[in-house]
Amino acid sequence: MTLSEFDLISRFFHRCGTARDDVALGVGDDAALVRVPAGMELALTLDTLVQGVHFLAGSDPRSLGHKALAVNLSDLAAMGAEPAWATLALTLPESDSTWLEAFSDGFCRLARESGVQLVGGDTTRGPLVLSVEAKGLVPVGQALRRVGARSGDLIFVSGLLGDAGLALHALRDGLEVDDLAYLRGRLERPQPRLKLGQSLRGLASAAIDISDGLVADLGHILDSSRVGAVVELERLPCSEPVSAYLARNGDWSLPLAAGDDYELCFTLPPGHLAALERLAENLSCRITCIGEITREPGLRLRTADGGDYRPRRWGYEHFTQNPRNGS
Amino acid sequence: MTLSEFDLISRFFHRCGTARDDVALGVGDDAALVRVPAGMELALTLDTLVQGVHFLAGSDPRSLGHKALAVNLSDLAAMGAEPAWATLALTLPESDSTWLEAFSDGFCRLARESGVQLVGGDTTRGPLVLSVEAKGLVPVGQALRRVGARSGDLIFVSGLLGDAGLALHALRDGLEVDDLAYLRGRLERPQPRLKLGQSLRGLASAAIDISDGLVADLGHILDSSRVGAVVELERLPCSEPVSAYLARNGDWSLPLAAGDDYELCFTLPPGHLAALERLAENLSCRITCIGEITREPGLRLRTADGGDYRPRRWGYEHFTQNPRNGS
Repeated sequence: MTLSEFDLISRFFHRCGTARDDVALGVGDDAALVRVPAGMELALTLDTLVQGVHFLAGSDPRSLGHKALAVNLSDLAAMGAEPAWATLALTLPESDSTWLEAFSDGFCRLARESGVQLVGGDTTRGPLVLSVEAKGLVPVGQALRRVGARSGDLIFVSGLLGDAGLALHALRDGLEVDDLAYLRGRLERPQPRLKLGQSLRGLASAAIDISDGLVADLGHILDSSRVGAVVELERLPCSEPVSAYLARNGDWSLPLAAGDDYELCFTLPPGHLAALERLAENLSCRITCIGEITREPGLRLRTADGGDYRPRRWGYEHFTQNPRNGS
Repeated sequence: MTLSEFDLISRFFHRCGTARDDVALGVGDDAALVRVPAGMELALTLDTLVQGVHFLAGSDPRSLGHKALAVNLSDLAAMGAEPAWATLALTLPESDSTWLEAFSDGFCRLARESGVQLVGGDTTRGPLVLSVEAKGLVPVGQALRRVGARSGDLIFVSGLLGDAGLALHALRDGLEVDDLAYLRGRLERPQPRLKLGQSLRGLASAAIDISDGLVADLGHILDSSRVGAVVELERLPCSEPVSAYLARNGDWSLPLAAGDDYELCFTLPPGHLAALERLAENLSCRITCIGEITREPGLRLRTADGGDYRPRRWGYEHFTQNPRNGS
């Protein structure tokens, strides 16, 4: 592939996303120039997807374009930030115009829907690696962080948990599931909870997005906030296919640890409960209280009969450090 | 490599670079939070280095860390921006602590020297790919751009041209050269011209950094500004090893097209010449006038006897479009 072919690639991303007034200079110079309004902080988040690690060879390029941006917008949602600009580092083995057209279509469509303008990037030859950096705006001092959860706060999650994990299980291992099309949409086209995240400013005490699984990500809130939690397994919100899988296997790993759902997990002082309920109604967004923050450190997973559920593995390291939860 | 090993990697970049007051939240949450002062625009630039394409397998990791950041700071220099923050997307095949320590040392040292704080990133497993995004600040409306050169403006370059190309020639093809250590330093440890770039605000009419070679990069200024240029070959500033190579081979491709020098090329209205001379003296920075912007489009390369030099290949497409310069 010659340099010229790479120059052509940039045409697929010409005028990608929303045309924003705060972009003084977009793609095509040594750097882009953007303007941050007074009173706002700039939120920066970067995620890389590698073929063979984060997605399989032959994955639908339109979905990849969507997901590469969506996982970053989900981080902005978790901060309560409003998305503004994105940059894209695209390393790919060849200049395949069919692939590029579909990829850029998926990327730019979500950018448009989210008010994001693509302002820069770099295209290089090599193994397929996609890095996106999303930039968002949040009023100074109002960003939602992992630190801030306090004993007595309620723990909520948005949407449903475990769908993406079940889809991956079905696609990779050939597991038979109900409603694969729905599950696959959840895996390949996650919808970042931007409106919810922004609306939680001033309400939630801490927030994170669920990319690595509830246990791992809630674990980050617990670590940062130096608190513990009790989560009631029976309260975990699951779709019918995931509930059916749970009923068959008694394996809670999908809603607890599978990740890739890109829902928000947040903590709320009980005094904000009425405001949250109004908010959820206005946004038509399902939110579910799944437990409570405790002074005692560690994460307890409580079963319907009041006992402790003890997972064998999974990200959150406190399981191996805390004898009560150790396997 | 497990997730935990990747978590460890982030420790190599803990407190990397300068601790800046305008960073409200650094590495370790869903996003970093930074503050852009009123009256400043944010300059964003992103460059990816791929093993086997931009550097050879087995390259010194300390130099790679330096260069991955330097090539981005060079873009900020070309905009006249002051560097502030950086993010790093690091895809690597394994968690090799010796490699990582050297890489982060090279990266963080240059960050410190340049007033840059690393505020975020993502580490993933896969083939070695390094993407850095540098963010800088520039007073609103004062950034140097590729557009702005006018007929009669003088064309300048900083430093010396062709050193990096000759080093690559020597290392890759075994060419015998004088002073390989010096040349190699120029290839592997380019020094972004940050002070010069910032000082050119209000003086230069257009600027770019020389990453793809003088002909290609000056070509971008000509295209954007819709002008042409005459460059005098004899004026091109070259080191002794490059001059010796030129004398032996009569091949001008090193200073004209080899790239990777990361010097600045800029245009200057003649009325600003005295101010530029004072500036160069204050900065102890070598700058050389190599030609002049013309109304007539296209790039003419003039030899010592007043004739036209006609290169056979090289990036700038006008060579193939303009019959006068066609090969």
